[in-house]
Amino acid sequence: MESRQSRLVIDVPAWVDAVTASGQTYRRDEDKMALVIRLAEENVARRAGGPFAAAVLEIESGRVVAAGVNSVVRQRNSALHAEMLALMLGQQRVGSFTLRAPGRPAHELVTSCEPCAMCLGATLWSGVSRLVIGAERGDAMAVGFDEGPVFPESYAYLAERGVEAVWGVRRAEAANLLRAYRDGGGFVYNPDAGPPTAGD
Amino acid sequence: MESRQSRLVIDVPAWVDAVTASGQTYRRDEDKMALVIRLAEENVARRAGGPFAAAVLEIESGRVVAAGVNSVVRQRNSALHAEMLALMLGQQRVGSFTLRAPGRPAHELVTSCEPCAMCLGATLWSGVSRLVIGAERGDAMAVGFDEGPVFPESYAYLAERGVEAVWGVRRAEAANLLRAYRDGGGFVYNPDAGPPTAGD
Repeated sequence: MESRQSRLVIDVPAWVDAVTASGQTYRRDEDKMALVIRLAEENVARRAGGPFAAAVLEIESGRVVAAGVNSVVRQRNSALHAEMLALMLGQQRVGSFTLRAPGRPAHELVTSCEPCAMCLGATLWSGVSRLVIGAERGDAMAVGFDEGPVFPESYAYLAERGVEAVWGVRRAEAANLLRAYRDGGGFVYNPDAGPPTAGD
Repeated sequence: MESRQSRLVIDVPAWVDAVTASGQTYRRDEDKMALVIRLAEENVARRAGGPFAAAVLEIESGRVVAAGVNSVVRQRNSALHAEMLALMLGQQRVGSFTLRAPGRPAHELVTSCEPCAMCLGATLWSGVSRLVIGAERGDAMAVGFDEGPVFPESYAYLAERGVEAVWGVRRAEAANLLRAYRDGGGFVYNPDAGPPTAGD
């Protein structure tokens, strides 16, 4: 009856997923951030995508529920920022459209770079209670990545709805990674930039 | 080696996808909006999700490239607003992370309700050149759906980057659908609301 594609299939790299299988737990924000910075570095080293990674953790246990890396170019999908993958995969694992269900563990999103407008909205809808940020908006914009319409009022909006933002965790290290990506000739995609040429 | 789920599979209802297979073209904004309002009504009638639908069209030809309906509860994924499905599926079909590639047709997003913060960001990244809006933020908030941190400056940000917003297309009709959904006892999900009980 229906011959058109009616399924979106989003592949998460196995080496990203592996961090959730290790069973390792993370208590300090600095250690959580070190994990996502390592994933972002690996994403670049494997030429798998942009220099961004994120993870969803259970706050109390420190268990990693899901991790994501920037997959926009690899999957040809501008929505596949690291945070979106981590949040969507986290909800798939928990089996709910909210990570804040009564009687369930509270969750946090740890991201190597401040969320763009899309990801900040997705953070609010996801039900995470905490957002831990490495590099900041200005660090991303300085190397050519747009961050979209995010304003100080945006964070106030989230705070009023139970999402605490934590800034400056390993910021210098996370920002250095962005600069190294640009300086290494990494592709900075945007809506007006076509795909990289073969071999890029 | 890796036994964990490493794939996100997002099912798009076949009856939604069917509108893109019909080959019908849409020239007037009112006709495009009538299409997505009909999809939103059908989503409610089939108890498949919230009262929201969206479509990506080629502006010049009026061809529907992809359509989406709110699938948050059905797919247990708070990112699956109608606009996100339409944009992601549209990019999958075009085979690019941008709908604005040089030498390719320009695209627009038509949505039965003003995009939330997440979807407005996704609209910017998608490469669509035009955003056509039915019901407005206040209409959605009035029935209990949050819209997130979107401000007048948000639309200015998009306009400066080549995304024109068109308001008030069949607004009354689109807003009526939202009210009818609430009045009919439709589930208004949010991060603090657990899934509906069986039979809802």
